[in-house]
Amino acid sequence: MARFRPAIGDESQFLEQLFDHGLLLRTGAPGVYGRGPLFEDVRERFDTLVTRVAAPDKAESLRFPPLLSRRHLESTGYLASFPHLAGTIFEFEGSEREAAEQAERAALHEDWSASQTMTDLVLVPAACYPVYPVIAARAPLPAGGTTIDAGGAYVFRREPSGDPARLQMFHQREIVRIGEPASVAAWRDAWRDRAVEILQRVGLEAEFDVATDPFFGRSGRMLAASQRAQELKFEVRIPIASPEPTAVASFNYHQEHFAQSFGIKLADGGVAHSACLGFGLERIALGLLRRHGLDPRRWSGAVRDELWGR
Amino acid sequence: MARFRPAIGDESQFLEQLFDHGLLLRTGAPGVYGRGPLFEDVRERFDTLVTRVAAPDKAESLRFPPLLSRRHLESTGYLASFPHLAGTIFEFEGSEREAAEQAERAALHEDWSASQTMTDLVLVPAACYPVYPVIAARAPLPAGGTTIDAGGAYVFRREPSGDPARLQMFHQREIVRIGEPASVAAWRDAWRDRAVEILQRVGLEAEFDVATDPFFGRSGRMLAASQRAQELKFEVRIPIASPEPTAVASFNYHQEHFAQSFGIKLADGGVAHSACLGFGLERIALGLLRRHGLDPRRWSGAVRDELWGR
Repeated sequence: MARFRPAIGDESQFLEQLFDHGLLLRTGAPGVYGRGPLFEDVRERFDTLVTRVAAPDKAESLRFPPLLSRRHLESTGYLASFPHLAGTIFEFEGSEREAAEQAERAALHEDWSASQTMTDLVLVPAACYPVYPVIAARAPLPAGGTTIDAGGAYVFRREPSGDPARLQMFHQREIVRIGEPASVAAWRDAWRDRAVEILQRVGLEAEFDVATDPFFGRSGRMLAASQRAQELKFEVRIPIASPEPTAVASFNYHQEHFAQSFGIKLADGGVAHSACLGFGLERIALGLLRRHGLDPRRWSGAVRDELWGR
Repeated sequence: MARFRPAIGDESQFLEQLFDHGLLLRTGAPGVYGRGPLFEDVRERFDTLVTRVAAPDKAESLRFPPLLSRRHLESTGYLASFPHLAGTIFEFEGSEREAAEQAERAALHEDWSASQTMTDLVLVPAACYPVYPVIAARAPLPAGGTTIDAGGAYVFRREPSGDPARLQMFHQREIVRIGEPASVAAWRDAWRDRAVEILQRVGLEAEFDVATDPFFGRSGRMLAASQRAQELKFEVRIPIASPEPTAVASFNYHQEHFAQSFGIKLADGGVAHSACLGFGLERIALGLLRRHGLDPRRWSGAVRDELWGR
């Protein structure tokens, strides 16, 4: 197979090629795709490479399903900043007659939303969210703080799109550091450099820059300006298919935000700070496929050695 | 650590022990738990054991996120049979003023459901559901049909419970066979025997029996009776914590149900049949922990050899 490079700026052409090669699979919803074995292998191998690089952190490994207690989302202020990205879970609680009516409407693809009621669950918006309540329940923090590896977990963002690099559900490889402000900031800065290095090792043109979260609305623009001024967020970006490079890793310094939301205190009773890093595993797999070609079995020996060789 | 055996019938005692040993982690919602590394290791090792046993099937390996197009759920009749178990995804589509109101209510833990609207997505109720539309899009089937390994994927059932063996989100290791009626039925029967054998190899007292799905309401009782009379569903059960043995694997013969819902035809134009098998990976991990003790590092050599030895 010849090396295929979609035109920069033509996301839909890239997505069609991914479908044609069985790397991604249509499911009927934009940004929700099945995955073929070659795509999954690349994603998992990069995840394993992160595990090797992260070994010196001696992080505690915890895993979470992609659901979060709604109360926890309410406590973090997520809905003030990102109401447009949140997904909530609804259920049916009615009678047998109401169930029959709901089923009848649904079979006709008519609106059956009125028979659904809100549950106590939402979709996880970022893989670090379930970590904080678990650490809070163990409080206070041990001296030196704690580092949690939350794995490569599915997270949800409500942003349907035809760009394969903008999925509604994707794997975020997340590590969280909670502790003294200075050690948390130093950890974040060290990982920013490590992330660029990992991506360069697999042949990607990675660069980092100060960044902002996609805050909602006009008031969100002020939040973004403040976040940028304080350099609270960095991103590492690589070329995928859109005209501008795409963020594939981000490094967020939350200061006391999450520790205060959940009541996490330092061993000495002081206010803890937190930071997290997240690799967008599907975006990295897409970047690798675009850079090295759509058949990973034919990638160069050096790249294959990094991902499969050890 | 001494071997711990919770009293049969005391599910809540077992759950507390799992929390105490860091095998499961509280998240604030019943049936939604984080997982410690030992629990995850057991779950993944059993998953790998299934992969080894399934090798002769030469199944095609496909993976799906835990979201399904709502339209596909509507097309299968799931809402007629299991309206109480379905989870639907809602989102915010309002203005900046409405977002501020929603955030204010949420921060006070008041009801903010009125500002949420239904999306085109639902949670996956069983790991085989996303497979059928993908196979339908490739139609017709190749001669001999097809076998798809959908992996150990997260699925959702809305049944909050204090029984650790009844999770709202759990991993279902699912394999789907679609083809000629006789070959599909034979495949299902062969796996029923293989599943008992796998579970016995890791020291579990497994037995199979005819079973029924948890259909909703009074009309559901008739569906269950018909399913039982036709022996369309088998389950393999093991002792976990509840008074009766718990189903940890099920084998469903759908006849033409899913093929007709999605328009899957045989190579000769005839009606395809389908069957699937699902292992409940968390339930099997729980059964192993209950049978062999809460520290997998101390399990007997024979059991460890089966799970870690190859």
